[in-house]
Parts: sequence; C-alpha cells; structure tokens
Amino acid sequence: MFFHRQELQHKASPDRPDAVYARKLQEVLGGQYGEITVAMQYGFQSWNAHMPGKYRDLLFGIGAEEMGHVEMLATMIAQLLEKAPVGATEKAIQDDPTVAAVLGGTDLQHAIVAGAGARPVDSMGNPWSAGYVTASGNLLADFTANANAEMQGRVQVARLYHMTDDAGVRDLLSFLLARDTMHQNQWIAAAKELQEEGYEQLPVPSNFPQRKEATDVSYEYINFSDGKHAAEGSWASGPTPDGNGEFSYRETPEKGVPMPPPTRPDARFYGTTDLPNVVEKAAGTVQDKLKKD
Amino acid sequence: MFFHRQELQHKASPDRPDAVYARKLQEVLGGQYGEITVAMQYGFQSWNAHMPGKYRDLLFGIGAEEMGHVEMLATMIAQLLEKAPVGATEKAIQDDPTVAAVLGGTDLQHAIVAGAGARPVDSMGNPWSAGYVTASGNLLADFTANANAEMQGRVQVARLYHMTDDAGVRDLLSFLLARDTMHQNQWIAAAKELQEEGYEQLPVPSNFPQRKEATDVSYEYINFSDGKHAAEGSWASGPTPDGNGEFSYRETPEKGVPMPPPTRPDARFYGTTDLPNVVEKAAGTVQDKLKKD
Amino acid sequence: MFFHRQELQHKASPDRPDAVYARKLQEVLGGQYGEITVAMQYGFQSWNAHMPGKYRDLLFGIGAEEMGHVEMLATMIAQLLEKAPVGATEKAIQDDPTVAAVLGGTDLQHAIVAGAGARPVDSMGNPWSAGYVTASGNLLADFTANANAEMQGRVQVARLYHMTDDAGVRDLLSFLLARDTMHQNQWIAAAKELQEEGYEQLPVPSNFPQRKEATDVSYEYINFSDGKHAAEGSWASGPTPDGNGEFSYRETPEKGVPMPPPTRPDARFYGTTDLPNVVEKAAGTVQDKLKKD
Amino acid sequence: MFFHRQELQHKASPDRPDAVYARKLQEVLGGQYGEITVAMQYGFQSWNAHMPGKYRDLLFGIGAEEMGHVEMLATMIAQLLEKAPVGATEKAIQDDPTVAAVLGGTDLQHAIVAGAGARPVDSMGNPWSAGYVTASGNLLADFTANANAEMQGRVQVARLYHMTDDAGVRDLLSFLLARDTMHQNQWIAAAKELQEEGYEQLPVPSNFPQRKEATDVSYEYINFSDGKHAAEGSWASGPTPDGNGEFSYRETPEKGVPMPPPTRPDARFYGTTDLPNVVEKAAGTVQDKLKKD
Amino acid sequence: MFFHRQELQHKASPDRPDAVYARKLQEVLGGQYGEITVAMQYGFQSWNAHMPGKYRDLLFGIGAEEMGHVEMLATMIAQLLEKAPVGATEKAIQDDPTVAAVLGGTDLQHAIVAGAGARPVDSMGNPWSAGYVTASGNLLADFTANANAEMQGRVQVARLYHMTDDAGVRDLLSFLLARDTMHQNQWIAAAKELQEEGYEQLPVPSNFPQRKEATDVSYEYINFSDGKHAAEGSWASGPTPDGNGEFSYRETPEKGVPMPPPTRPDARFYGTTDLPNVVEKAAGTVQDKLKKD
Amino acid sequence: MFFHRQELQHKASPDRPDAVYARKLQEVLGGQYGEITVAMQYGFQSWNAHMPGKYRDLLFGIGAEEMGHVEMLATMIAQLLEKAPVGATEKAIQDDPTVAAVLGGTDLQHAIVAGAGARPVDSMGNPWSAGYVTASGNLLADFTANANAEMQGRVQVARLYHMTDDAGVRDLLSFLLARDTMHQNQWIAAAKELQEEGYEQLPVPSNFPQRKEATDVSYEYINFSDGKHAAEGSWASGPTPDGNGEFSYRETPEKGVPMPPPTRPDARFYGTTDLPNVVEKAAGTVQDKLKKD
Repeated sequence: MFFHRQELQHKASPDRPDAVYARKLQEVLGGQYGEITVAMQYGFQSWNAHMPGKYRDLLFGIGAEEMGHVEMLATMIAQLLEKAPVGATEKAIQDDPTVAAVLGGTDLQHAIVAGAGARPVDSMGNPWSAGYVTASGNLLADFTANANAEMQGRVQVARLYHMTDDAGVRDLLSFLLARDTMHQNQWIAAAKELQEEGYEQLPVPSNFPQRKEATDVSYEYINFSDGKHAAEGSWASGPTPDGNGEFSYRETPEKGVPMPPPTRPDARFYGTTDLPNVVEKAAGTVQDKLKKD
Repeated sequence: MFFHRQELQHKASPDRPDAVYARKLQEVLGGQYGEITVAMQYGFQSWNAHMPGKYRDLLFGIGAEEMGHVEMLATMIAQLLEKAPVGATEKAIQDDPTVAAVLGGTDLQHAIVAGAGARPVDSMGNPWSAGYVTASGNLLADFTANANAEMQGRVQVARLYHMTDDAGVRDLLSFLLARDTMHQNQWIAAAKELQEEGYEQLPVPSNFPQRKEATDVSYEYINFSDGKHAAEGSWASGPTPDGNGEFSYRETPEKGVPMPPPTRPDARFYGTTDLPNVVEKAAGTVQDKLKKD
Repeated sequence: MFFHRQELQHKASPDRPDAVYARKLQEVLGGQYGEITVAMQYGFQSWNAHMPGKYRDLLFGIGAEEMGHVEMLATMIAQLLEKAPVGATEKAIQDDPTVAAVLGGTDLQHAIVAGAGARPVDSMGNPWSAGYVTASGNLLADFTANANAEMQGRVQVARLYHMTDDAGVRDLLSFLLARDTMHQNQWIAAAKELQEEGYEQLPVPSNFPQRKEATDVSYEYINFSDGKHAAEGSWASGPTPDGNGEFSYRETPEKGVPMPPPTRPDARFYGTTDLPNVVEKAAGTVQDKLKKD
Repeated sequence: MFFHRQELQHKASPDRPDAVYARKLQEVLGGQYGEITVAMQYGFQSWNAHMPGKYRDLLFGIGAEEMGHVEMLATMIAQLLEKAPVGATEKAIQDDPTVAAVLGGTDLQHAIVAGAGARPVDSMGNPWSAGYVTASGNLLADFTANANAEMQGRVQVARLYHMTDDAGVRDLLSFLLARDTMHQNQWIAAAKELQEEGYEQLPVPSNFPQRKEATDVSYEYINFSDGKHAAEGSWASGPTPDGNGEFSYRETPEKGVPMPPPTRPDARFYGTTDLPNVVEKAAGTVQDKLKKD
Repeated sequence: MFFHRQELQHKASPDRPDAVYARKLQEVLGGQYGEITVAMQYGFQSWNAHMPGKYRDLLFGIGAEEMGHVEMLATMIAQLLEKAPVGATEKAIQDDPTVAAVLGGTDLQHAIVAGAGARPVDSMGNPWSAGYVTASGNLLADFTANANAEMQGRVQVARLYHMTDDAGVRDLLSFLLARDTMHQNQWIAAAKELQEEGYEQLPVPSNFPQRKEATDVSYEYINFSDGKHAAEGSWASGPTPDGNGEFSYRETPEKGVPMPPPTRPDARFYGTTDLPNVVEKAAGTVQDKLKKD
Repeated sequence: MFFHRQELQHKASPDRPDAVYARKLQEVLGGQYGEITVAMQYGFQSWNAHMPGKYRDLLFGIGAEEMGHVEMLATMIAQLLEKAPVGATEKAIQDDPTVAAVLGGTDLQHAIVAGAGARPVDSMGNPWSAGYVTASGNLLADFTANANAEMQGRVQVARLYHMTDDAGVRDLLSFLLARDTMHQNQWIAAAKELQEEGYEQLPVPSNFPQRKEATDVSYEYINFSDGKHAAEGSWASGPTPDGNGEFSYRETPEKGVPMPPPTRPDARFYGTTDLPNVVEKAAGTVQDKLKKD
C-alpha cells in the first residue's frame, strides 16, 4: 500500500517561471532515465522479488522515495510554467525576438494539452514508455541496471544544473544530485553484497552450468574492428573479473562457417524463389492444395 | 565502414524447424536487450566517444561482432520457420490439437508479413525501438549500461536454453552464452580500468563538484517503506563505494516541506480555479484581452 | 511524498497458479485503462491542479490508492506465474496437448524477460505508454475522463471475472469491481459538484466566450451518414444539456465551400507541381537561388 | 461505404502563412484528442455496435463528419506552411533573429519529410497512435469517453484560439468550437437517454450482478492522502449517483493484509533466491533436469 | 467532406465465427500495410498535393474507397468474433484441448477490451501508428510508395486466403485481392504517366540539379559484401533506368578517409575524455565557469 | 559477419559546428526513411531471402554500405554538436536573441541525454522504430519498397541541402545524393530483371492464381470522390501494366450490399444491446451461467 502526504521531501519552487527550462526538466521526470522509470523499475523488481528480507526492503524503500521525486519534479515544472505565455499574439512577443525565441523552445503540449502543467513525457515530447523498465528477477543483473540508471540520471541532472541560474531550481537539482549519489552507491554496495553472500556471482546468471557454454570463446576478445589499441586493455589479457578464466586476444576473427542454404518455405507464402519454372510449378502446387482446401 | 562476409561466426542451423521457438528467439534478436540493441548501443557510444584509443577501439570491436549476432539469429529464425504451417486449413491441424496449439504460439507476422522470415521485433511482436539505446558520452555510466545489457541478455539466453532440446539451437545458444560471459567480463574490466586510470570515478559524473550537491543527504539511506531489514545491508552503514563518505540510516523520513500553493496560470488556458466568481471574472479578463488581440 | 507499507489493501493470492490467466490480468495492470493509467492520471491532475481544497485532495487520495492497486495486481500476477512451465521440453507438455495449448496462450516475456514476474504491459504485450494519461487542468473535462476510465476499467474486470473460476482471483476482482463502482460514482459526483458550485459549466471550457464560436452550428445535428434513426434521439431536438440552446436536426449537410487551390511552396521542397515546364523552370529557380547560397 | 466530395464543410484558409502555428494546429489534427482520434473512435464504436438504430446511426453520422474535420485541418495546415522558409541559409533569416526564432518553433518534418504539408502527428511530432482509441462495446462507457474527448478537444481549440490573431484561422477554430459544443451536448444527451431507456445504468457495466462485488467497500471513500478536505465533497456522504447506495468516508485506510510470501518459480528462470546454498543446490537441480532434457 | 452510407462495397460476412482468424485478419486492417494505412496515406497525399487535376482526383478517389475497406474488415472481424468464448471456465474448453488451443491463438483484447469487436491494431496487437504513412509532396516517390503498399497488402491477403476455408471470408478476400490488383496497376500507371508528362523523372527528385551531387559515384556499384554474383545483374553494367548514365561495378570499396578526431565538447557535458589530469582540470574549468554563472 | 574499419567512405566533417542543423540531419539518420531503416531493411531482406545468387548478393552488398552511412551521419552530427552551448545561462545567449533562437531549435536530448552526441532518432526526437522496416520475402514487392525508400531519402537529403551553406556538410550530402541516385536506379533495374527472368510478375504476388480473385473488379476504376479528372489518366482506360487486362472507369460506385445485422456476442462481454428487458434477462443469463462456473 502507498500513502501520500501533502508535503515534499525537499523544497521545489523556482525563483521565477521559465517555460523553456520546464521543458528541459521533463527529461529527468519522464525520460528513459527519469524518475518515473526508477519508481516503476524498483516497484516491479520488488513485486517480482523471490526472496524476502533486506534486498527486497531496499527496493521497496527507494522505490517509494522515487515516487516522491516524480511529484517534486511535476510540482516544479508546473511552477516554471506559471507565467507561460499563451502564444504569438502577445504584444510583448511581437516586439521582442527573445520572447519569440523562447516560445520556439517550449514544449507546446505544456500549453495546448496541459494548460501550463507538467506532463509524463521527456524533453522532446515522447511519452514515457514502460519499455524503459528492467526487472528480470535476477538481482545482480537488476542492481547493475539500477546503478546504471542512477548514473545516467545524475549525468543528466548535472547537465541540467548548468542550463539555469535560478537558485530555486538549482537547490532542487542539488538535492536530486545528492540522492543520485546515494543511490548509485547503494546499488553498487548491494551488488557487491549479493556476490559476497553467494546469492549471485559473475557471470550472471551464475547458476547456469558454465560447462554448457562454448567455453573456448568464453574469455577470448575477438576484434571485429581494425583498431590496434583494444589489445592494450585489461580486458584482453590477465584474469577475468568473474575469477573463472584468463582473457586472451585474437586480432582477427577466425574464418567463419558457411551460411546455410536459403530456406524454401511453403509456396503459399509467395516468397520469391529460383526453383525452375517457379511460377507454373508453384501455381500448380497451390492449385493442387487449393483443391483440397 | 562496415564490410560483410557471407559467413557466420558460428553455425546457426536447427536440427528441425520449430515455429513456436522461432517466436521465442525473437526476444534476443529484437527485444529490449536483444542483439540489435547492443549492436546499435556500442555503435552510438563509439561514434560519440570523446577520446581515441583503447576504449573506443573496444566499442568498435564488440559493436561489429554484435551485428554478426543479429545476422546469426535472423538466419536461425528463418530456418526454424522453414516448415511453418500456412494455417488452420491443413488437414493435420484439424485432426491434431497439438498442432492447433502450436499455431496459437507462433508469431502471426512471421507468416502473414514476413512469409516465414525473421522480423526486427521481440517475442511479443513489439517492433525494436531505439528508445532501448543508451549512449551518454560518459564512459563509466555507459560501460555500466553495457555490463547490465550483457547480464540481462545472458539471463534471457539461459532461459531460452531450457525451452528447447534441439541440439542445433542449443549449440548456437551455448555460443551466445559464452560471448555474453566474455562481454560481461569485458565491460566490468573496462569500467574498473577507467576508474584506475582516473578518467572517471564514482559518483558518476565524477567531475561535477560534489560540494554543489546537498551533501547532508548524499550518503543517508532514508527508508520510505516499513521494511525493517534494509538497515542490515552494507548500504546503510560503513564506508561508501565511492570512497567519499560513510553510509547512515534514517528509519523514517524527516518531516517534509509544505507543498507550494497551486499555480495560477493565464486564464486563457481555461484551467479550473477557485478565484471568486471565477467564470465571470475570467470571462472578463479573457474578453478584455480578446479586445486587444 | 509517498510512503509504502508492506501490506496489501486486500488479499491478492490465487488458489492455484495459471500462467495464461496471468497474461489476461496484465490488461488491467498495464493496459490503456489499467491501474498504472489511473495512478499516473490522478497524480498528474493533482500536481497540475490550480485550486487547493477538496477536489485536489480527492485526486491525491484516490491516486495513492491506485498505486496500491498496481501493487496488488503485480503481486497476484507473480503468484499466478509461480508454476509457469519453463518450456516445450517438459515431459508433461510433450504428452499433453492441453499443456501445449496453455503455453501458446502465455505472455512469453513473463518467462523470458521477467523470469515468472509481472510486467508493465497489457495483455498483448504492449508496454504501458504515458500517451494514455489525461490531465488538462480543466477539472470538468478531467473528471469526465476519470469517470470514463473507471467505467472502462470496471467493464474489463467484469469480463475477466468470467475468464477464471479461481476463488482467490475472483476475490480480488470482486474487490476491484467494488472500488471501480465507488470511483465511478465519485467522479460523477465531483463533476456534478463542480458545476453546481460554478467552477465549470457545459460546454467545457465554460469561460470561453461562446459568442466567439460559430453559433449557427452550435446546436445543429448534421447527419453525414444515411441512417434515418439518428433524428429520433434527444440529441436532435429539445433543450441541450448545457442549458444554452435547442437541438436542431439537418438530414443532409449543406453544400460545402470549395477547396482552396493547392499550395505552391518553395521549389526547393521538390514537390510535384503542374507549373508549365516545371522541371526546367524550377531547376532554373533553384539554380538561381543556389548561386546566392 | 464512404464517399468524398471535393468541398470543405467550412472555409479553411488562413489570411497568411504561419509555419509555427501550423505546428501548433497539428495537436488537434493528430494528437491524443485530435480529429483523427474521434473519427476512428466513432468508426470503431459503430462497427462494433451490438444494436441497430438511433445510437449506431448517431455514431455513423458524427464519425463521418469528423473525417471531414481531419481534411479541413490538413488543408489549413498545408496553407499555413505555404511560405515555410526552406532553412537557415535564407538571407532574411540570417539578418533577423525573429525569423530565426520562428524556425526554432516549426515542425522540422513539415519541411524535411512532407515538403510543406500536413502530417498525421501531434504538436510535438509524435505520430498518431491507435492506442488513443476507445471502443468497448459498452455504450454508456463509450459515450462517456466521447463526451470527454469532445471536452478535451474543445479546451485545446480554445487555447489555440488565443495563440493566433489570423482571422482566417480563427474563423475555422470558431467553427470547430461550435461543433465541439454540439458534440459534447450530444454525447451527454445520448448517455442520459441510454440510462433512461434502461439499456445501461450506473455503475457500468450495469448487468454485472453487483452482489458479486465486495459490497462493503462499494461506496466507501478511503483516503490514502492526508488532505482533510476530501471529506467535504458530495462523494463522501449522501446518496450515490447510481442510486444504489450511500457514500461513507474513512479517513485512514484499515490495516491491510500481509503480503504473500515471495514466489519461488522454477530454478531454471535463474531468479535470485535465498534458499540455503542456492548456487550449489539450484545448479544441482538444473543439472538433474538437464540430464532429462 | 466525407459522407457515409450504411452499405458495404462487398459482402463481408463469414460462414461461421472464428476468433483465431479474426486476429489474423487484423493484420490487413491495422497493420503496417493494412487498410488504415492506405486510407490515411492517400488522404494526406491528396491534402498536401501541389497540383489540381487527375492525379489529385485519383488520390481522393482511391482514398475514400479504402476507408470503406477499413469498414468492411472491421465488420467482418466483429462477426468472426460473435461466438468468441468468454474464457477458460467454459465446460467445453476444459474438456477439449483444441478449444483450449484456440484460446491461445486469439487476440485477448478482442475479448477483454473490445467485448468481441474489431480493433485498430495488427495481428500481434500493436496499435496502428501514423509512422506507417508516407506523404512527401513528391508524387513519383509517393506513387512508388503506394505501389509498394498495394503489393505488400496483396501478398498478405494472399497468405491469409490459405489460412481459412470459410467461403464467406474467402469471398471478401477475393474482392480485396482484385482491388489490390487494380490499385497496384493504377499506381504503376500513374507513376509512368507522371514521367511521360515530364512532371517528374528519375532520379527523384528530378529537379535537383544533378551536377551538385558527387557524380563520380552516381552510377557505381560498390560491393560491401563478398558475394561474387552481384556483378551479374543489370544494375552493375549497362545503361541506368534514369537514362542519365552507365552502371559500373567496383568489387571492393576504395580505401576510405580517416575518421575525424573525436569531438571535445564543453566539459560541463561530463563526457569522458583523455585530457591530461582531466578530473582536476575539468573541475577547475567547471568551477571557473560556475563562478560566472 | 560484419567487419568494421576505422575509416569513412567519404569525408564527413562540417566547416563549423551548427547544433540546429545537427537536429535536422537526424531525420536522414534515424527517421522513417533514414539510413538505419535501409541498413536494417536490406539486412532482413537478405537474411530472409529464399534464393541464393545475384539478388541476395545485391541486398548484402548495399546493406553493409548503408551501415557505413549510419556511421558517417552520426560522426557528422557529433561534430556539428561540438560547440553546442550548454544552456541559457551563457552570457552570450542572454545578450543575443539569435543565440537564444538557436537554442529553441536544437534537439534537447543532444545536450541532456547524449552530451553533444548523435542519437538514433528523427528530427522531431522520435526514436527509430523497426515498424519502418519492410521485408516480405517477395522480392518484387520488396525491391519496390526499396526504390521508394531511396526516393524518399533522396528527396529529404535534397531538402536538407538547401538548409545549410556549410561546404563540409554539403560535400557529404552531395555524396549521399549520388548514392541515393545509384540505389534508386539499382532497385528499379533489379525489379525489372526479376520480371524479365520470370521470378515475379505483376500483380504481386504473381503466382497466386488470379482466377481466385473477384475478376470483375480487378481492372475497374471506381471513383469514390467527385473529381471529374481521374477518368483522364492512363489508369482509367487502356491496357494495364500487368498485361492481363484493360482498365475501365466507373464514375459512381454501384449500390453496395446491406450491412449485416449487428453482432450479439455472449452477454458476459457486457456490450450494450437492445434485447427486450435486457438488464434483467442478461443478468439472468449471467447468473445462470455463474452458478455453473
């Protein structure tokens, strides 16, 4: 169950409206790595978790916080839009190219659809999609996904920080940056603990019997580009992070295997083939079959 | 530049056609974590890379390999579909509920749209979307995204392994599992090397001056659920993975701040407000403004 | 702020697993009118609300309840999937066409992607899209949208009720049906109250000065089909629900106005036109302009 | 059958081209509540209708009118784009920041893809999606959906009215506003008539036997937020609009039920669990099963 | 303007319901090349046409016919669904694996969402998207798109023909096949006539001055794969269809040009770079700039 | 297998950065007819091809070239973004409306998400979708699709040519224009050769026995609009391109057939019907059935 309290975790008010910045801020609300994504992602991971206890509690705990972040950003965006100009007929706009320019940079649906309100979209207006969510049931994979989400999110907030000098906006961003710092650290710590406690190991999933994979290429770097420097990395020689092998390097792929012959599905799929007299024959086949239909 | 050779990196032929399994295999071709995703993701990361050398060469090298994996899976799927039944009018189907059941489990567009060919979709028929791709320009974030993609991909291939007993299909899957093992290890090694060489540190992005964030909550776990066990993890006390702090734990969020008052945008957005006599007044305002329009 | 409690509003456990039904239930979790839609819709309407007080409190109150419904359905689906078969290689499946049939009816991503977990998608596997959300800032329009959402939702749950005889599932559905009954009634009551209190009237938006619209066709039914019975309804004669007019009926549309002449945009858009000697002339124009470029 | 006449229902020509406004107008052509949505929605409702007569005739009649509105808007947009500048190399643009600003506000695909033509997209460039359409077969639910669509549409047109002072554009908008007034009134009248004639009642669907729902919570407002004012509305006490009950108010949700224990699906899904010695045991299980595979 | 008549162009009634086939038929209603696509495509091409007369009349004429095809297919699908089983609790289903299999092959939203009605989706449940529509303003390009659409559509209908033996369904399909034959022929004839009348030539767009392109590679086949047979086609030697050149063949691409050096955008984008002491320096730069912010 | 070489097929460097143009160029990278589309389309056509030899080699050969075009455009876009301004707080921007205008015209995700890098999206920010790809297995249909794609692509590049005067950008565009010229010619030549060699004929698919279609309307133009000029084209009289018939012209459609009666699906779908006393009766039916459930 979720309970709502009419308070915000942190102050979320700009010093002054800024409809262009409102659009930019949509990215971290409704984008691929926005707050809706992490709120839903941690939610689905917790509901699908196969073990009770601290890991699931962690997912529940951060998931609910992120729903509050969705709310803070939506609240901020609505305020940034409070003086959004209605449109091109304003006298001020006609006289002032800067104002005209501003209009060019706004999310038009903020005005036309939401009436100066926030929307569940990214900065280019794409509606949020659940295709962004990751929840596999394998916690080491999922915590790595979460660490990535918090990193991408913090990179985006950091970029947005420089796109405004509004102290109120920056105050909220500094709070979000701190929470992203915390959450990055937490998912990394949780991923490490999972491995130390033996629940999962590398390579993920660790309980698939590795002898079933083609072990001759499990630790071989095969270079399909002509860059010479890839051999210099720790991924081309030395022990592998999973502790199970030793990296090797192959500068050029081995000769491959021949492609299988093209397929010849049923003639009634009407694919183009090179069978002799194909039109007549296929038609014949078809007609033979049609008689039976 | 990309060059194509009419060979496959590994044999990709089933022992026998299986139209239902062809659909399942679409997931690792055209799904969120399928081969198209990693091929495009490593491509965009390399084209957007801001430094030459081993990291970019690594991206180029693996990216081109993944395009070859797209091809192997498409080739395999086309063969699995080679005997795809045309439809419900086949005599065998009418007599045999198992065959009828099989039809229910196929991707209908394999037959109707592609004529027994592979398609750039996932196992539920959703077309592949570039919304799956991550390429931020920050290599530590992106390599973490890549490690996650390889983990999710290997989990999915492992699951698919048990959904068939076709030796030819399993042979290809064992190859893909091995390459996912390799690539998981590589991205983890590369992420570690980036940090050791000082290009990036935690928290990502590391060159955003951390004093600008709200440091009082940078390392505090705030529990928004009522699970008691989240405090037991290494993410609630002790040093943080980024080496910059010490985790603390707060069982219940502090009292928040009051929500700001609702916004009052221009009356011409026709939002509902509680201004006294709102209809008349707003109408007045609108009409006043309309006169000027 | 949102707080999570590790309890469910109502029991959400099936009597027995049923992977096919798990897929059907996804519709009311992640479909156009599923619980994610209403949770997000009421959230965005509350964050964008322009007046404090009872209407906004209502949005906050129901919105948070709906997040709990998302959780109940996800929890139920995970349990329905608990015995989901891994795939076609199971001995029982090979012998039993009913089991084979079952597999054809499952959401393949439940197994391959989520490892027997719920997903933020509808019953055909389409990821939830924020394009389903309505939040215009005009409360009479939005409460009508909400009433519709609760109606569509209750219709779907009623249909789903007959697709199972599992007492545990039906128990949860009977709870959801009751809450949909409540919420339908609430939004209808709220829409009525808004009008009685004068915040909004029909036609929405009521403070747009109606004299600005083409009042000659504001209450005229114009029949663009040849059905004779449309004239029999209360929408073709008598007073209009907004109280501002009287319906009239026109059996056949008036003669229209001529279409404007086709547009002739800049030749450098390379549209096809019938200007005499168009290729030469346009080329000339282009070349003249190119010289200046 | 549909027949086309090369006339428009109303004049649809601007006084002067305005490429920025052309983009804004796309919202009511190809947006969530644009004319394509209502044309398709009324179409599918009529084709799926289960009763002949006045209601279906009404759907047919308005549906065909809306197709004509799609055409009027597309025609208007093409004319607004007639002088669309080709791009940044125009001399006028380089000298005039207002013109540069204008370019920033245009739909780039109007120029690059459509060559100064209308497109089936919204004002932010999202292609129209059939995910916007509602057609459930339950006419009371669907007419409520239609009333909402006409309200949202009229709100958007009203907003757009203030974003231009072009008399030709405003003339078309005043016509669309009037038709939205009519159609709002019609769907509300039709919904009322359906109930008066006993085809449907509240709660929708009315022929689901209400005793099958959890009637103890069918009319209880349960407040999941901490707003105190929700209790003041007509939705918290007094008779319910469906005439079947009496609203009650519960300030705080009852204690919920415990969450069910986490699920334990087949080990071959490779989810993370806390079973003792999970890696070894699960591997054992997997290997045992694999032998049988 | 569009007018609707309550008749169908051709009989559209199945001999018996078939819910599985109803789903298959969705492909040619709401798929990439279904009837909605061509109705909307010809519509937008006509509204955007830059010349009056026979070509535009042709677009208008066929476009309206296609709207009638949408209606015929929706009507047919609703009838195919008339006996759609409600679900798994039917006695017949429990006893009969064939019936169970049938359920696995249905579109679940036909039942749950549309109540046994047609939907604007394809056979895998993807909602129709306006991203399928092509309307460039260049008629030779667009007529080629139309010819392709009619070919793809006819291939799909031909495949569907063999997936049923219902005489009523086949009767409608035979009608659609004939109309696709007609429309294929028409667009090919129209494309030829456009060229003969000099409105457009190959290469499209023909009035772009070809001397502006890199004419040294305008007619050279450059083989990026290692297949030896591509040289054998009429596309590798001899005159080109546009009449402007002669095909030549290059077996191996020329050496390319070096990639440009990686970009070095502003440090405040937090991309990873190899500038010496990057963290310190970039931090310095950022902090310097922040002071000025 | 695909191999990558760290070279470009043609120089791809602008003379100067231009973040607004970078966004425009996204159209031909990640749009409906951008380079990702053709690379994937030719790939899937080749993997699904049913005949070896010159046609498949052609698909492989051009497909790999197009992947290199993706790379050239991504590389160009990254350079165009190299001096992308971070945001509105730059001093230069505040003083200069032209710079402000520029910001309004950029792709905000270029900055916020990609850190001044290319993205797999179109010029309006829509992510590339595999829904753009065509690969039916019928080569005459598919080569026509390919000819169309190259035409649409060349039209778009020609338009983009006039939107910049940067010599470096124009140099790349002139190269792409030439390759589009080549590829248009090749697909047209290949389509012609397929027919001459008898693999496919018009109408596509040619081996469907045409006597099975409703031959009375196979070559009849039926005019559903009131334009008088459609009869003047070569598509209304004379021999048909497929050589099988003679065009005829019908100015007005024949009288259609009556619509079938509305469907009456199971009452448990809760559709609205006009059966007498429907509520009671249907409820009765439902309750009878529920007893058996």
